Amino acid sequence: MRVVRTVKQLREALEYMRMGGHTPIGFVPTMGYLHEGHASLLRRAGEMSSTVVMSIFVNPLQFGPNEDFASYPRDEARDLELAEREGADIVFIPGVEEMYPEPTRTTVSVSSLTTQLCGASRPGHFDGVTTVVNKLFNMVQPDYAFFGLKDAQQVAVLRRMVSDLNMNVEIVACPIVREDDGLALSSRNVYLSAEERSQALVLSRSLREVRQAMEEGTVSTADEARELIISVISASPLAVIDYVEVLTFPGLEPLAAGSRLNSAGGEIIIALAVKFGKTRLIDNNVFTPKEVHALV
Amino acid sequence: MRVVRTVKQLREALEYMRMGGHTPIGFVPTMGYLHEGHASLLRRAGEMSSTVVMSIFVNPLQFGPNEDFASYPRDEARDLELAEREGADIVFIPGVEEMYPEPTRTTVSVSSLTTQLCGASRPGHFDGVTTVVNKLFNMVQPDYAFFGLKDAQQVAVLRRMVSDLNMNVEIVACPIVREDDGLALSSRNVYLSAEERSQALVLSRSLREVRQAMEEGTVSTADEARELIISVISASPLAVIDYVEVLTFPGLEPLAAGSRLNSAGGEIIIALAVKFGKTRLIDNNVFTPKEVHALV
Repeated sequence: MRVVRTVKQLREALEYMRMGGHTPIGFVPTMGYLHEGHASLLRRAGEMSSTVVMSIFVNPLQFGPNEDFASYPRDEARDLELAEREGADIVFIPGVEEMYPEPTRTTVSVSSLTTQLCGASRPGHFDGVTTVVNKLFNMVQPDYAFFGLKDAQQVAVLRRMVSDLNMNVEIVACPIVREDDGLALSSRNVYLSAEERSQALVLSRSLREVRQAMEEGTVSTADEARELIISVISASPLAVIDYVEVLTFPGLEPLAAGSRLNSAGGEIIIALAVKFGKTRLIDNNVFTPKEVHALV
Repeated sequence: MRVVRTVKQLREALEYMRMGGHTPIGFVPTMGYLHEGHASLLRRAGEMSSTVVMSIFVNPLQFGPNEDFASYPRDEARDLELAEREGADIVFIPGVEEMYPEPTRTTVSVSSLTTQLCGASRPGHFDGVTTVVNKLFNMVQPDYAFFGLKDAQQVAVLRRMVSDLNMNVEIVACPIVREDDGLALSSRNVYLSAEERSQALVLSRSLREVRQAMEEGTVSTADEARELIISVISASPLAVIDYVEVLTFPGLEPLAAGSRLNSAGGEIIIALAVKFGKTRLIDNNVFTPKEVHALV
């Protein structure tokens, strides 16, 4: 495994792999503080690619002024161990100066997909994501790029960017990885107190319950799904709901009020963001609702 | 020479050239209705590249609602003759449906370099330029891309986009090509009546006169340069000045009022846009002012 810290070194390392015929190139962009979710991305990349590149960069552009850029957890030594163990060939760890030698005047932005969900709570966040991922794609020029579905909106937005800009890369969305008790893995889970960690289980539980209620036919509309999720989460006294939304996926269009979940004719997403203390957690389920035979 | 009309055909044609070792790839993006200026870009591309790709696409995204998108001159047969004669290997002529199968939600924009000059007169124009050139660069993945300095602001903006987004392409700026009488070549010159065509010579004449006055020491500040140009152009009764600006290049920062032209410490641009009837023409000079020894 080779660790590079400049764009020039990265391009040289990649050129060497390409010259040796070690293609396709798979790319896993991360903000580091790696966990089993990132490991699953590396493993998937390894299955599909001859060269696996991982980047570790906490991108200031995608943090709001009152967000946790400075305190975002970092542990390079542990990250490199995990990357090596999971088969990364090249790890790119640029500093902020290397990524932004001067403040960028160029912004890549995706409209309308970025106004709801986390885009509403975090203005400018997705412009920061699309701009830095665009840069990274131009540096790595990968054949595949791997992202976790925990950030499902990010997947939808990046797919749209790649399609609109004719970027020559395929976005591969990978399933959410969870702890045994259901909590979706996140680098930010480290912020949680024991009490918050325990109460945060309502997120995955609420998603499981709504799926079960749909199976049983007791929930069939978007409104009913939202209400059930809100009632489950509200049982946790520390939970402060930011949003609970039911949308088409990956178009992220709201379902009309009262319309049946299976009326969208394709995949839908049930997405939520909830604060526990200072920590904002997200979780979601993307799935295709079954045809339900009306019981008249 | 191969003519392709879809992104898929373009990528296949390029893959074939790359497999055959015909690199580097040089790219000349145009809006067609080719003239000797475009021919000079193709020749320069031929000198620097093993494969020369030209695109012809009148991009609706960079025209304002009251601009000349519908009437912009087109002549594909003549364009293909010129491209063949000047050594293009691949000509890409996509339709609007091929470039924008659905309305783009992704915009690439460069701030601050786009607020003055043509950016002020044509709001949204440069977002359209950067977005379509970004797409074309992603399709062609050229080593070099060739642009005429007549659109000097476009060159400055695209250089910044390439640098900010780490695109792996070098922007090669080529000199303005002029008629024998000095008129800068433009596809839009075809709109001019004989009388307008004749009076439009004040543009290049004003730029020559200001350069001569600088040589002679009668003009030494940005204000003096602007005043001289405005007085020369105003002698033409049909000329309606849009702007006359003196800025640093490629930073496009205004020179402080009264400051000497050689105080910028690098290249400057004298740029102008003038309407003759319905036709808006632009012209400019990019140069490094000489050190002038003060005659005290």
